[in-house]
Amino acid sequence: MGSVAYDSVRTQAGSRTDALGGSATYFSLASSYFSPVGVVAVVGDDFREDDLELLRTHKVDISGLERKPGKTFRWAGVYDTADVNTRETLDTQLNVFADFSPALTAEQSKADYLFLANIHPALQLDVLEQMDSRPKLVALDSMNFWIEGNKADLKKVVEQVDVLIIDENEVREFSDERNLVSAARAVLRMGPTAVVIKRGEHGVLMYLSEPDGSESVFACPALPLDHVIDPTGAGDSFAGGFMGYLSASGATASTLPAATLRRAVALGSVMGSITVQGFNMEALTGASKADIQGRFDKFHALTQLNEAPGGNGLPWSN
Amino acid sequence: MGSVAYDSVRTQAGSRTDALGGSATYFSLASSYFSPVGVVAVVGDDFREDDLELLRTHKVDISGLERKPGKTFRWAGVYDTADVNTRETLDTQLNVFADFSPALTAEQSKADYLFLANIHPALQLDVLEQMDSRPKLVALDSMNFWIEGNKADLKKVVEQVDVLIIDENEVREFSDERNLVSAARAVLRMGPTAVVIKRGEHGVLMYLSEPDGSESVFACPALPLDHVIDPTGAGDSFAGGFMGYLSASGATASTLPAATLRRAVALGSVMGSITVQGFNMEALTGASKADIQGRFDKFHALTQLNEAPGGNGLPWSN
Repeated sequence: MGSVAYDSVRTQAGSRTDALGGSATYFSLASSYFSPVGVVAVVGDDFREDDLELLRTHKVDISGLERKPGKTFRWAGVYDTADVNTRETLDTQLNVFADFSPALTAEQSKADYLFLANIHPALQLDVLEQMDSRPKLVALDSMNFWIEGNKADLKKVVEQVDVLIIDENEVREFSDERNLVSAARAVLRMGPTAVVIKRGEHGVLMYLSEPDGSESVFACPALPLDHVIDPTGAGDSFAGGFMGYLSASGATASTLPAATLRRAVALGSVMGSITVQGFNMEALTGASKADIQGRFDKFHALTQLNEAPGGNGLPWSN
Repeated sequence: MGSVAYDSVRTQAGSRTDALGGSATYFSLASSYFSPVGVVAVVGDDFREDDLELLRTHKVDISGLERKPGKTFRWAGVYDTADVNTRETLDTQLNVFADFSPALTAEQSKADYLFLANIHPALQLDVLEQMDSRPKLVALDSMNFWIEGNKADLKKVVEQVDVLIIDENEVREFSDERNLVSAARAVLRMGPTAVVIKRGEHGVLMYLSEPDGSESVFACPALPLDHVIDPTGAGDSFAGGFMGYLSASGATASTLPAATLRRAVALGSVMGSITVQGFNMEALTGASKADIQGRFDKFHALTQLNEAPGGNGLPWSN
């Protein structure tokens, strides 16, 4: 559940106008490589037939994509030419998204995996309550806008989800903890089993509550990329790869193997790394299995710290 | 070779005045746990006997520590209370360091491992030329001050070293490449076998020239720390652990195993993580072998991405 939008972006690599975007779009396309996925979102009567066709081609179930009179949600932004991590929003037109009241189809309310993309926390909670029974796993994304303006609502829904996916600075703001370890612990105390902290080009930190009450931490670097075209949608593509892998693995929140979650984080990072190497959906929709698998395999080479021949004992000088 | 200083710092955790500091001091103390080490530096006649004794206690060879009339190098700074990565220099008094003309002892000129800490690149080159023969491995650190003011001199010495250890933003400035992959490749083309890019709390990226002409990359996260007292000296402690491990391993630049370098990076990160959890040298000098080994072991748990039971093949949806 999230947004489907038309985005206009300008980056150092060029620009695009009214190209397909939105959190639900990036999420579902990234996820579609690994698992059946459906969207809950709204578009206007200006939504283009070939964009519907793109989603169908990727076997995204669009029966939950409501079509309303009016214009589709539009966003326009420009990325700093020197620092691709910095962007400025030029224009936001909510249009039909302003009154979005998500309604699950009968089939969707029986889904085993639910991702609540960044949207008003009251709507996120509403969707969760529309589920026939508790899904195997629920993940949620949010952003500073809701943290600043609706923290109480956001806390209420975070308490009920299994995985919080959130940016580094946002988790600090949400938890009122400047230190990232303290911030992660504060989130785990609220209820989630795991908190996935996105740090852009610095990768991801995941904190996981272990059955014995302790927590474990996984640090997943980002794949170093020699060119970035357009960072829009990286976070939602991450979430799509992450949830798609968990869904394919059959994982349940109550018995969530750490190793499965770690692979889900790596695959999420892979999907994010693909998205940013094209404008809008261009790289994501054209990704080959060989490219995805190759990037996934690179994570092992990137992070592997082999034991020394004699084991990990250090060479003390005395 | 580097500085020995008296530092006055204020952080959110408190303050210290005229406490032992300096790049050569942090480096040699961190390195001393793994390998015999000697300093090349200068102090004034105000240098305290108990600080000499501290170095001796850690078996740091101080025969190359020149004592000159005048005052020891002094630095004073304050760290942002909200963001420990941001600091402001309040005062720098070069004192006897202003005319530092490093002179190696006969024994030092035969050393197998040489670390050239951040100092005027012409002096770094001068020390390298004082070596009787080419050491097994030479590493160098620098900073934006020299990159901005003496880039030509710096390039001349970088061409002759095996490992460049440098901050993320500094390598961008040094190479005139905004993208980190491109920046690393530019450095490797200048001559070094490896470039170790420090990213503070986001860890380290190491690029290594492989014998076949390709390059490999290692991403080493920082240990997540639930409290940081004083970041001063983290980079020099990193370099000390890194070089101490390489020295203990007997590694030679021309046949440098990637696995050995990766462990050296992890151990450097361990020593940096210890330093920042105390003021000045307090945590570093008091570190136990159990703490160092424990942190080193944590890197495996922190980054391990196990294969799935059926291998790393991904669960394609179709």
